Amino acid sequence: MKVSEIAALLKSSPIGDAEREIYGVSALEAAGPSEVAFVEGARSLDQAKASRAGCLLVPEGVSLPGKTTVSVLNPKLALIRIAGALHPPASPPPGIHPHAVVAPDAKIALDCSVGANVVIESGASVGEGTHLSPGVYLGVGVRIGAKSILHPNVTVYSGAQIGDRVILHAGVVVGSDGFGYVFAEGRHVKFPQLGKIVIEDDVEIGSNTTLDRGSLGTTVIGQGTKIDNLVQIAHNVKIGRHCIIVSQTGISGGAEIGDYVVMAGQVGVGERAHIEDRVIVGGQSGVLPGKIVRSGSVVWGTPCRPMNEHKKTTARLAKLDALAEKVQALAAQMAKLSS
Amino acid sequence: MKVSEIAALLKSSPIGDAEREIYGVSALEAAGPSEVAFVEGARSLDQAKASRAGCLLVPEGVSLPGKTTVSVLNPKLALIRIAGALHPPASPPPGIHPHAVVAPDAKIALDCSVGANVVIESGASVGEGTHLSPGVYLGVGVRIGAKSILHPNVTVYSGAQIGDRVILHAGVVVGSDGFGYVFAEGRHVKFPQLGKIVIEDDVEIGSNTTLDRGSLGTTVIGQGTKIDNLVQIAHNVKIGRHCIIVSQTGISGGAEIGDYVVMAGQVGVGERAHIEDRVIVGGQSGVLPGKIVRSGSVVWGTPCRPMNEHKKTTARLAKLDALAEKVQALAAQMAKLSS
Amino acid sequence: MKVSEIAALLKSSPIGDAEREIYGVSALEAAGPSEVAFVEGARSLDQAKASRAGCLLVPEGVSLPGKTTVSVLNPKLALIRIAGALHPPASPPPGIHPHAVVAPDAKIALDCSVGANVVIESGASVGEGTHLSPGVYLGVGVRIGAKSILHPNVTVYSGAQIGDRVILHAGVVVGSDGFGYVFAEGRHVKFPQLGKIVIEDDVEIGSNTTLDRGSLGTTVIGQGTKIDNLVQIAHNVKIGRHCIIVSQTGISGGAEIGDYVVMAGQVGVGERAHIEDRVIVGGQSGVLPGKIVRSGSVVWGTPCRPMNEHKKTTARLAKLDALAEKVQALAAQMAKLSS
Repeated sequence: MKVSEIAALLKSSPIGDAEREIYGVSALEAAGPSEVAFVEGARSLDQAKASRAGCLLVPEGVSLPGKTTVSVLNPKLALIRIAGALHPPASPPPGIHPHAVVAPDAKIALDCSVGANVVIESGASVGEGTHLSPGVYLGVGVRIGAKSILHPNVTVYSGAQIGDRVILHAGVVVGSDGFGYVFAEGRHVKFPQLGKIVIEDDVEIGSNTTLDRGSLGTTVIGQGTKIDNLVQIAHNVKIGRHCIIVSQTGISGGAEIGDYVVMAGQVGVGERAHIEDRVIVGGQSGVLPGKIVRSGSVVWGTPCRPMNEHKKTTARLAKLDALAEKVQALAAQMAKLSS
Repeated sequence: MKVSEIAALLKSSPIGDAEREIYGVSALEAAGPSEVAFVEGARSLDQAKASRAGCLLVPEGVSLPGKTTVSVLNPKLALIRIAGALHPPASPPPGIHPHAVVAPDAKIALDCSVGANVVIESGASVGEGTHLSPGVYLGVGVRIGAKSILHPNVTVYSGAQIGDRVILHAGVVVGSDGFGYVFAEGRHVKFPQLGKIVIEDDVEIGSNTTLDRGSLGTTVIGQGTKIDNLVQIAHNVKIGRHCIIVSQTGISGGAEIGDYVVMAGQVGVGERAHIEDRVIVGGQSGVLPGKIVRSGSVVWGTPCRPMNEHKKTTARLAKLDALAEKVQALAAQMAKLSS
Repeated sequence: MKVSEIAALLKSSPIGDAEREIYGVSALEAAGPSEVAFVEGARSLDQAKASRAGCLLVPEGVSLPGKTTVSVLNPKLALIRIAGALHPPASPPPGIHPHAVVAPDAKIALDCSVGANVVIESGASVGEGTHLSPGVYLGVGVRIGAKSILHPNVTVYSGAQIGDRVILHAGVVVGSDGFGYVFAEGRHVKFPQLGKIVIEDDVEIGSNTTLDRGSLGTTVIGQGTKIDNLVQIAHNVKIGRHCIIVSQTGISGGAEIGDYVVMAGQVGVGERAHIEDRVIVGGQSGVLPGKIVRSGSVVWGTPCRPMNEHKKTTARLAKLDALAEKVQALAAQMAKLSS
């Protein structure tokens, strides 16, 4: 792609060498003369001056004399578009691999790609253009929409419903039994795990993340929500739309998460907690069972509190030793004064 | 099943429409006229009045005029029994799938079900009625008892012993090498991981949980213990009987856990810690290496302390800022007084 | 192996029954008359006196009258050597299993062992003596060196590079997409994950651990580093040489870890944090995004602080209640004095 073509795709005009050929995208510090990179933020701008990149996507109003640039409203977003044009995702040829094991009554759209060692049980259906990588397992009656990608060794339990354009990374488990028992006569008796799980459109789920089905109800992952690696989603959890849930977070049974919620890594959410829309939860926080975190709040710590308060406490904590000594000194003075 | 049959199974008598046909179990708030639900606790009782459920399992002594009810000692437990009758678990037909790879000297009981792409190595044995789902791997000499269920893509390393009625969810790894090295000449030299792992009867283990074999000794998961998803059990850990270990908890090498212990989510247990019988550990707690947590105690926090104390500290912490200001004010007054 | 042969291998001389036959290694407390165990530390020395072990590897200068011993500089390291001689690792016969699916242009060294249901995509190469267990998936262009072992159901995404003598335990995922999005028009747009991942020689990675490729750059795991089970390594992370990273730790995007770093379990490292050489991070610590932890320091807590300070704070915290009461009492006295 010529720089001029990149600019045209972004509805902008190039400054500098419009004829230069660009073969790939790269990070600013690593980009070479045939690569495009993006510039965002002050530190990035400094790096850009020393960059060898063949083309730089810069925010509007930024000029970099001597560099070939294309100015756009959102350089990072622009890079995503250019990357899509330069590196279109490899789509495996459609067809069912001879080493796949597909139940005769499963409905596989004609242009799906079904890899080696895939197992598809009775009654399952797979929509157009969906790609099942080697080792994927679809249980009885699983329904997957169109243009989804299941990476290798993903397991989908019976009855799970997965939407369009969903990406499940390697080792993801969808629809395993929830963790519920009734204690009776000295042992834990398994509670029925007969519910459903629904993963809506445009969800992406990271490697080895686990998502349990509902016990009697339904586990739901809302449209456009993105979940990182090694996250645990328990039975009956409802997650809204366009949330971001970072690695190793765990969400307990029956918790409800609103829309546009962001959870950093290693957060724990207790049973039936309710996190409302647009909440941001700091890393390693603990949201106690049943707790309601109000819409738009930013929280941190265990038990989680408003981020600013928690930060203040944390700063105070670092000086707790000094505080205790001060109290000691005051007590001594007081004793002296009193006597 | 008629309501009268449900009542008979529970050794109770129905009140209301004994002839009504019930086809499934459901959660109280979602149950329809052909479903049975259970009622437990005050809030649940309020919901029950508005429920459309065709049959309600209620605690003895509770009456719900106008509703069809069956009163029992333990409604939740009763629901488990009815669910078992209404939704008997689908058992796959016995037999070895033609795409399974089974060593000639492996002993597979006649009525086992061995799915596609299962690999069973030399010397392994599988008991009656056990179900190995597609993609399961059993290493050399693995022994699995009767009526166990291994979900897809479970890996069992060589020599592991698994009892009867054990359930291993998708992606579980049993018997991988412990994490042990000796540092010598600037590098970490792998310590032999030659020990065993024994999973006793009636254990259930959640998706993608990992359990290491002993290094020289044995890792043991006691009878009836239930382990959730993404839990880490290190080498030489001994877990007693009928414990509950919630998701993302990690138990370090050589730790010993008694019977009937409950650990909430994301707990960390240090090396060679000893958690005695019936202890309850709150979520995200850290039990330091070598620590002994006495029988029956309830602990929380890192390092873990008695739950009540930790809660008090947590409440105080939220007011640490105010405390520091108070000390500041006292110091000022003191300075004034002293001068 | 006779005790005399063990001693010869360790370049030492036996004391006691040099002719005794030893068939295996064992833990000190479990060892029988035909087993060898090692003795290290005072407690271990007491156990040794009561041990039934056929041979004890003891530190130089230690004598155990009545026992058969071999004295060495480093008994634990000596045991590793003897274990290697007594229990040489079973190496599966070379060859490609008929149920493996190998692209015609993949380069598989002649003496590799490729198990059942392994899938190797186009352009991949596997070095001499490497063992791919059943269910392993190698994407397009993956390169694996010599004498590496991939346990069952490991997934390696396209383009990943893995060195010599690397061990990947069951369920490991190498090279999945990093977790990066740009928020635009009310939804999260996937940032390209086109980078690389390099796992250098002598690395060992525990079960179900996940390692993402770089987004535009490269994720690197340095030579000799050992990673435990269920660890998360995000995109663009650089880990140095000979590090130890314990279970359930998560390292966020762009973080850099030096050489010889030790991280205990469940640590969280924020984006672009920089942990310098030989740092030790205590269990469950949180290293904030962008934080620099200086070479050689020992830290604990969230946010992490020097271990000694954090321990002092923790001890003070346990007495926070008493401190608050003391301040209350002082305030009362002060009020009395002032009036």
